[in-house]
Amino acid sequence: MQTRRKLGIPDEDFIQSDKVPGPTKEEIRVVTISKSRISEGSLVVDVGCGTGGLTVEAALQVAPKGKVFAIDDDEEAIQLTESNVKKFDLENIVQLICGEALEALVNLPEVDAIIIGGSASLREVIRASYQKLKMNGRLVVNAILLETAYEAVDEIKKLNLKDLDVALVFVAKGRDVKSGTMMLARNPITIISATKA
Amino acid sequence: MQTRRKLGIPDEDFIQSDKVPGPTKEEIRVVTISKSRISEGSLVVDVGCGTGGLTVEAALQVAPKGKVFAIDDDEEAIQLTESNVKKFDLENIVQLICGEALEALVNLPEVDAIIIGGSASLREVIRASYQKLKMNGRLVVNAILLETAYEAVDEIKKLNLKDLDVALVFVAKGRDVKSGTMMLARNPITIISATKA
Amino acid sequence: MQTRRKLGIPDEDFIQSDKVPGPTKEEIRVVTISKSRISEGSLVVDVGCGTGGLTVEAALQVAPKGKVFAIDDDEEAIQLTESNVKKFDLENIVQLICGEALEALVNLPEVDAIIIGGSASLREVIRASYQKLKMNGRLVVNAILLETAYEAVDEIKKLNLKDLDVALVFVAKGRDVKSGTMMLARNPITIISATKA
Amino acid sequence: MQTRRKLGIPDEDFIQSDKVPGPTKEEIRVVTISKSRISEGSLVVDVGCGTGGLTVEAALQVAPKGKVFAIDDDEEAIQLTESNVKKFDLENIVQLICGEALEALVNLPEVDAIIIGGSASLREVIRASYQKLKMNGRLVVNAILLETAYEAVDEIKKLNLKDLDVALVFVAKGRDVKSGTMMLARNPITIISATKA
Repeated sequence: MQTRRKLGIPDEDFIQSDKVPGPTKEEIRVVTISKSRISEGSLVVDVGCGTGGLTVEAALQVAPKGKVFAIDDDEEAIQLTESNVKKFDLENIVQLICGEALEALVNLPEVDAIIIGGSASLREVIRASYQKLKMNGRLVVNAILLETAYEAVDEIKKLNLKDLDVALVFVAKGRDVKSGTMMLARNPITIISATKA
Repeated sequence: MQTRRKLGIPDEDFIQSDKVPGPTKEEIRVVTISKSRISEGSLVVDVGCGTGGLTVEAALQVAPKGKVFAIDDDEEAIQLTESNVKKFDLENIVQLICGEALEALVNLPEVDAIIIGGSASLREVIRASYQKLKMNGRLVVNAILLETAYEAVDEIKKLNLKDLDVALVFVAKGRDVKSGTMMLARNPITIISATKA
Repeated sequence: MQTRRKLGIPDEDFIQSDKVPGPTKEEIRVVTISKSRISEGSLVVDVGCGTGGLTVEAALQVAPKGKVFAIDDDEEAIQLTESNVKKFDLENIVQLICGEALEALVNLPEVDAIIIGGSASLREVIRASYQKLKMNGRLVVNAILLETAYEAVDEIKKLNLKDLDVALVFVAKGRDVKSGTMMLARNPITIISATKA
Repeated sequence: MQTRRKLGIPDEDFIQSDKVPGPTKEEIRVVTISKSRISEGSLVVDVGCGTGGLTVEAALQVAPKGKVFAIDDDEEAIQLTESNVKKFDLENIVQLICGEALEALVNLPEVDAIIIGGSASLREVIRASYQKLKMNGRLVVNAILLETAYEAVDEIKKLNLKDLDVALVFVAKGRDVKSGTMMLARNPITIISATKA
């Protein structure tokens, strides 16, 4: 599927699987991409790509010359991301890496932005990500856990990144029911971002 | 079960049923009761009592001399409310009425507060409720629909009630998972309240 | 200032004025742009452009061949939008129109998306916007008032647009204080969008 | 002022001061009181009483036989709390303590609930509070900082309290403006509570 759209893919356009979390919902996806400050030609890493929602969205931003490295230690996630990458004709932009984030990061070039959707060893991944960021590169962490939000802020402060931004985004979506528009909540996400100084 | 507690029953303490919505969650229940400004001896109507969460909570506030009229047109809701009223030893405080709110309201005495948890004909119920309120009585509407929130505010303005208060309450609750505290959203509720002038 | 960035301008990068509301905050801006489903070459109208935040953001999406018509009946808003358009080197993309939305819309060509940031006569503007939309064009309304959200949903349903989407977006931003990260709330915005069928 | 009301005092009914933070807003106050599970006769500590909003609200719940110990290290806060305690005729219920929480707690009897509105040394205060709680007593922490929410959850887990409850409460209040009801956000509060096992 060829697409010219640059931003904001409806959630239902992604191929999904019960076995893989995601995709990150549209509203969170676009704020996350915004915080990554990427553009055409950027090199981006998506740590914990899951369904591939952020990978595809980032790839659309950086195409045709940029690159997105999509990492996940779950093979099913990598396969699902691959399906979505193909659906959006982004095979030339996305490189899939099945493995642990810490190991995978070592072999990558320096990049413009790293997006972390959650990780078992968040502090270590943030430190490794910091090493891989170019100067003025952007680190973005999406936290669904109270602890992840705290640890991301704490570790980013220790690493002395600048322009720390913490955005709690709480969304409810309308569902059309017989009697009107029922507002259904989505889990709040804390999006933490900062710039390598 | 004898209880001396005056406020804030944990959700799981209510007998529940798949066939009846509710109970209104603790956080919303206590804000709703707060907005009703009831106290010992008050007369209260709970329109659309469902599981009986608000009925029980209101009854605990107005006992031992007050009264709560719990109305629902669903017989299963009335039975479930009755079970919860018994569980909290409030049979002497609560009067159950199975029927349409508009008809049921006609036969009630003037009361200090009317709580409307939603209704098929909201504007009419608000107008009928207004008639049944004592001077300085309180009207409280809990809206889960966009349209209900709008209609409640609009109708209350037409009726010239005073001290209109609109509170959108958006709650997320932590769930303890292996990796930390996952914040799970609850649907946002708009609580509209005002005083009969 | 030449920029290659395609999305997500930090709020502080906009020239601002005490006399003009805005800019729409980054998180709301990018979700709004996402909902408009615009891309390179799109024609877009920004009704009530204010500071020009959405105008600039949309212009970056549609450049170099698209166009954004920025309408406001406040001359100071138009001047401020003009300053921001110049700052981001988008003079060739943006056409500024000082005047009433209903009148201004009449003289415009058919467009791919119309973004309404609020208006004194919302229902009429939505109907006029509908007329100006191409088939499959997108209508997006940002509501800060309870009534605006309701009216937008109601009017869009009457016009039989498809894919109605209602997103309540409630954001809090962290401020670094001595003792930690204080979460400061921003007003909730309801973003209503739909497609001309 | 004699009051029979048991819950939910409007914010504007409290005497306020520019020099003292608070009062805790009505919606947060009543959820906090609810989480404390107090009732007539309970002994309660309010750590960091500020304006005295929670102190007064708790005192109304525990009167006439209970007691609230209101602690603050700011003399102006203690004076303001005293004014509000007098306004609500609760002098016999509330004992004011100007001093550091850790020291003040030492001299108190065992209590049924301790409410912590924030503190410079939160973890220590939580541990000291735990010591002062009766079995099945309730600890409630209101967090406005990301870090406070995390530390409260972490420390409560270390102390093995049971029934840990984490509630993020995000409220917006309607303001009546010419064109409708503008929803104005209040800062999100995380209310953490648990029971001494």
